[in-house]
Amino acid sequence: MSVLIVGSTALDSIKTPRRENPKLLGGSASHAAVAASFFSPVNMVGVVGEDFPSKYTRLFKRHGIDLAGLQVKPGKTFHWSGEYEANMNNRRTLLTELGVFETFSPELPRPYQSSPFVLLANIAPALQLHVLRQMRRPRFVVADTMDLWLNIALEDLLALIKLVDGFVLNDSEAQQLTQTDNVFNALKKIHRLGPKYVIIKQGSHGSILSGPKGFFLCPAYPVSGLVDPTGAGDSFVGALMGYLARARGSTDAHIRRAMIHGSVVASFCCEGFGLNRTVTATPAQIDERVKRLEQITRF
Amino acid sequence: MSVLIVGSTALDSIKTPRRENPKLLGGSASHAAVAASFFSPVNMVGVVGEDFPSKYTRLFKRHGIDLAGLQVKPGKTFHWSGEYEANMNNRRTLLTELGVFETFSPELPRPYQSSPFVLLANIAPALQLHVLRQMRRPRFVVADTMDLWLNIALEDLLALIKLVDGFVLNDSEAQQLTQTDNVFNALKKIHRLGPKYVIIKQGSHGSILSGPKGFFLCPAYPVSGLVDPTGAGDSFVGALMGYLARARGSTDAHIRRAMIHGSVVASFCCEGFGLNRTVTATPAQIDERVKRLEQITRF
Repeated sequence: MSVLIVGSTALDSIKTPRRENPKLLGGSASHAAVAASFFSPVNMVGVVGEDFPSKYTRLFKRHGIDLAGLQVKPGKTFHWSGEYEANMNNRRTLLTELGVFETFSPELPRPYQSSPFVLLANIAPALQLHVLRQMRRPRFVVADTMDLWLNIALEDLLALIKLVDGFVLNDSEAQQLTQTDNVFNALKKIHRLGPKYVIIKQGSHGSILSGPKGFFLCPAYPVSGLVDPTGAGDSFVGALMGYLARARGSTDAHIRRAMIHGSVVASFCCEGFGLNRTVTATPAQIDERVKRLEQITRF
Repeated sequence: MSVLIVGSTALDSIKTPRRENPKLLGGSASHAAVAASFFSPVNMVGVVGEDFPSKYTRLFKRHGIDLAGLQVKPGKTFHWSGEYEANMNNRRTLLTELGVFETFSPELPRPYQSSPFVLLANIAPALQLHVLRQMRRPRFVVADTMDLWLNIALEDLLALIKLVDGFVLNDSEAQQLTQTDNVFNALKKIHRLGPKYVIIKQGSHGSILSGPKGFFLCPAYPVSGLVDPTGAGDSFVGALMGYLARARGSTDAHIRRAMIHGSVVASFCCEGFGLNRTVTATPAQIDERVKRLEQITRF
């Protein structure tokens, strides 16, 4: 089955202590779509400007990503520029040029409206809601977010959270949203806002699911050569949704292994700038890392 | 088989945002010995003053801890006082009164010298070395440490690390020792200093073993009611050594489950002040939490 992915499509200029990388392919939808494409067909909705390099369009196509929902508008593609500190844990935004993203209104091509799996990757919650209103009874909807929306669009975000099956956020966002620094208490509080499945991402420490079958502590795949963590969270949730769309049977039966595959694809993302390493991953390499995660967590 | 545990025996006065707790039973050896006692006989070496409350001596005895190596000296018991911040992650020392600990020289009763399992819990590395020199071919020696010794006794610590089978430290100590913030690279660097087994503790994120059979990502047991994390690391390594001493067969065959039992006993430690909750844990409760850890990590 296919996954519908809506989010940002951007050009990312990423500075780390070692290198500068101008105008890499980035954005939550780009990372999530490529990650999901390892497992299932992907329909992507986003917007780019006329400056969007055709090599990136070709990259999406090579990954079997349907671009009928990718609007091309007069103007410039959303451009984000950020800098990582030496420890790669803290990043600072240097520049945000919204370009065509400023007036983005995600409109779903008719065939997309019946997608069974929907990933509302990180964009303004008002846009995520706008997408959800166009859907015809999707089977499983997951939303991701970022701290910005907690600060400037909390009301929209709370309206969205009520309507989704799964909600994904990182630990500092969970702390901000729930006013508790205990991750297990935060999970309980977020359930009360609506979603049946809540996943709190903890970066290199993995992630924690709380769902109908209780908690699942999902390990991160060990990355010893961290190059650029941008998009790792989007890759995680993209692969998770792609895996679920491919799997037969109930979400409960598959969500743990879906998260494990998310961890693995996120590890590839971290090993290169932008999508450079992710796009070279093979199904065999993914399987190998899943097996390794089994091996190093078994007891 | 029995475990020999050497470390500090102290009175801890612990302030948290909610409560003050004067003169709880504390110290690395106390926490480790009680934790180990759930699994095997324990011989404890330490020093206390004449003010050491008899109720704490009785507590050790109730746990089957042999006190032939616990020196009682004229003067006061080591007293540490600390305060936790609201998030319980940062603590600040308010007071350190060494008392009889200042001139402590751990001397092993003759029967202790042939203990097969030796835990050098956190004390000055010179004292840990002094203990090691008294041992007759122990089967498995593990040392723990703290940031203080990295700062003021690095040379002794490096001499110690060369001689032990296993070395345990937390993530910030590992970063300080190896000058790398990637935990997997830090593990590799510490192996080069000597030990075959290296464990980096990551607090509520669990711990990572690197040993002859590769990595093991050990989860922390979910604690939703964190009361006082003091001694959690000592409990972890104490239970680990107690479990190994009880197990038959090779260390490699048992160390993963030993760490899991360490996580579980550490979780009890966190749920009460000092040793208050640890001492009420039962073997059945420990088994139940081990089963729960299996359940929430399986995929």
